[in-house]
Amino acid sequence: MTSWLTSANAPDCDFPLQNLPYGVFSRTGEQPRCGVAIGDQVLDLAALERDGLVSTGGGPVFPEPALNAFMERGPEIWAKVRARLMDLLRDGGNTILRQNADAFLIPLSDVTLHLPFKVSEYTDFYAGKQHAFNVGTMFRGPENALPPNWLHIPIGYNGRASSVVVSGTDFHRPNGQLKAPDADAPAFGPSRRLDIELEMGAVVGTGNPMGKPVTVAEADRMIFGYVLLNDWSARDIQAWEYQPLGPFQGKAFCTTISPWVVTRAALEPFRTSTPEREKPLLPYLAEPGPMLYDIALEVGLTPAGSGEETVLSRTNYSTMYYSAAQQLAHHTSSGCPMRAGDLLGSGTISGDTPDSYGSLLEMSWGGKTPITLPDGATRSFLKDGDRVTLRGHAAGDGYRIGFGDCTGTVLPALKQD
Amino acid sequence: MTSWLTSANAPDCDFPLQNLPYGVFSRTGEQPRCGVAIGDQVLDLAALERDGLVSTGGGPVFPEPALNAFMERGPEIWAKVRARLMDLLRDGGNTILRQNADAFLIPLSDVTLHLPFKVSEYTDFYAGKQHAFNVGTMFRGPENALPPNWLHIPIGYNGRASSVVVSGTDFHRPNGQLKAPDADAPAFGPSRRLDIELEMGAVVGTGNPMGKPVTVAEADRMIFGYVLLNDWSARDIQAWEYQPLGPFQGKAFCTTISPWVVTRAALEPFRTSTPEREKPLLPYLAEPGPMLYDIALEVGLTPAGSGEETVLSRTNYSTMYYSAAQQLAHHTSSGCPMRAGDLLGSGTISGDTPDSYGSLLEMSWGGKTPITLPDGATRSFLKDGDRVTLRGHAAGDGYRIGFGDCTGTVLPALKQD
Repeated sequence: MTSWLTSANAPDCDFPLQNLPYGVFSRTGEQPRCGVAIGDQVLDLAALERDGLVSTGGGPVFPEPALNAFMERGPEIWAKVRARLMDLLRDGGNTILRQNADAFLIPLSDVTLHLPFKVSEYTDFYAGKQHAFNVGTMFRGPENALPPNWLHIPIGYNGRASSVVVSGTDFHRPNGQLKAPDADAPAFGPSRRLDIELEMGAVVGTGNPMGKPVTVAEADRMIFGYVLLNDWSARDIQAWEYQPLGPFQGKAFCTTISPWVVTRAALEPFRTSTPEREKPLLPYLAEPGPMLYDIALEVGLTPAGSGEETVLSRTNYSTMYYSAAQQLAHHTSSGCPMRAGDLLGSGTISGDTPDSYGSLLEMSWGGKTPITLPDGATRSFLKDGDRVTLRGHAAGDGYRIGFGDCTGTVLPALKQD
Repeated sequence: MTSWLTSANAPDCDFPLQNLPYGVFSRTGEQPRCGVAIGDQVLDLAALERDGLVSTGGGPVFPEPALNAFMERGPEIWAKVRARLMDLLRDGGNTILRQNADAFLIPLSDVTLHLPFKVSEYTDFYAGKQHAFNVGTMFRGPENALPPNWLHIPIGYNGRASSVVVSGTDFHRPNGQLKAPDADAPAFGPSRRLDIELEMGAVVGTGNPMGKPVTVAEADRMIFGYVLLNDWSARDIQAWEYQPLGPFQGKAFCTTISPWVVTRAALEPFRTSTPEREKPLLPYLAEPGPMLYDIALEVGLTPAGSGEETVLSRTNYSTMYYSAAQQLAHHTSSGCPMRAGDLLGSGTISGDTPDSYGSLLEMSWGGKTPITLPDGATRSFLKDGDRVTLRGHAAGDGYRIGFGDCTGTVLPALKQD
């Protein structure tokens, strides 16, 4: 299935006809509005809706600077709009868009991409078994690596929605309380163990009322799509603060997501099952079918002062122990209400070997085995000026479903007064 | 200083001229809008603004069903509006309101009160030393009761904003994963250790940009006001889930706040200092003046099937170790951006003796010493049908600054399919 827009048909194009991911864009001086990536262009959904070429079953939603209003329309409308866009863009489909392409298509190179949705709340999970085992081994030894609840609960904590930013947003190295193991008291200063976490983010498109838990099947249908997510982490701030109530300022300064929300519909062909259960799950977490996705992921580091990126790690989302649908069902198990725009981080995605780990903490084993870069420089954690880029795609037959880069650069810590 | 509205001048009135707390109200069939409680009436701010009797320095904010837009106008506008309302309501002040009272004042008994602001994010702290000591003693013994970071950091975690409700909203006992100490695996079912937490909530009125921490003095000025807060907690769900990432579903099903936001301005006469520091605080947490408030608090229980309330506990907000301004400054220390509508729970407020504890967990010492009620019934934790009411006030010279009740009733757990 190909598009009349030839740039969409290149085998290495992230945004073929089969993808159609949603985002928010603007050109200089314009209001941000909703669009879809196709080939090397953005399709202006606000213009399409204004001219009656696409309908979402109510008042306009695409002039909004966020996808939330569209998401709230629900899965039937998502499917209807996707089918309509496919028909407008495919080779031999409805020709009205092709005949008026200049009015609706804008080169990706001309636009600024914004945060694609208003993040209602942000929850970060811990569903990668290798990651949990690695981190647990470093802190508690291999015998006690996995917490006793880990094989029963998709462990998660509430993160900070206000610090979620779109790819390309640089941020300052955080200051915080740091306490050396042999120090009597903490000091306040810049984090020295600034890290990344390679994750996928699930975007909740429709909510549930307070007091009404949802099943895993219902949870799956509530998910609008997925993004790449880098949960930047200050390991030293986190280590001192996190007992007994969990991560707080060590993970509150920046979380970066990719600019395009790849829909669940586009990922359907890539569904895959969670691994065999090591202990039986309680019935409310049972999956009615494959709920993970085969998405190849990589972490690239461009060191400060260098133009050259090194790929530090390659792994796959399919290695996770819990799916986003399971996490979402668990999230509602107490009756907790979810809303359009809730963002669920998968947890760090680490494979079996150091070249597939999803954090520097694991790659450098807590700083004991620093990573050597091609120019001979080493890294245990990030230096000021370092740029990290996450990439991901699902590989179809002759096409790929890409997410767009998820990137950010570390700026120096702000001086204290 | 008295009001021409005589009901505001009774010594036991929660809403005298000195208070003027903000909320959101409606009568049957009306749109919710902003108002101020005075005596036994609500002053309709939307009507005042429409008729030009009060101005907030821009477009209308009071017809909104939440205080956020007004709060975003900032402290100078808050002060200007308060001064104007005082002038309109005080004895011998501007008479225009008195001459048109019917157009602007509605009996409290005729209105429904709504959630007073849109909760942007909800953070819950752990700043009561007696509470932290009690809970720590139960779980780890008195020698290790306080975590090592407790005297250095105002410990907090991100809670779930979507589950914050206004007083009077009943909720279902949550289901969740429960694991008995001697069980091999968890079971799923209704919480058997449903508890309350007596807290104050600080309401953030203006935010800070990402990457720009604020001082304690700046944080104090960002706080619009305070509410009573009951952080309902399922202790058994919490106990099994909280390691290593903190409370999640055990505190995600309901948090109740009082309907009126009592402004920082109204509480100024009741400022009091945090206690002497047992260990020196880092400079970023130093307080430039008294940042706590002398607010008397009580917890009332009306058992299922009874019309009679028993006061279980009386304590005071002034017993806390950290102030809301310190908590907010710490919250921004990593660069975390705060926004209008962020809600900061103080942490459970417990005095030195069981009749001043702020949770049933403490009052019944983990169920070991159940509370006996006047009719002979006992409680270690809440039963279905129990109603809990928090009350609070600051006592002035001949007047009191009240918050209105913060109440909720436990409904039975929903049956699982």
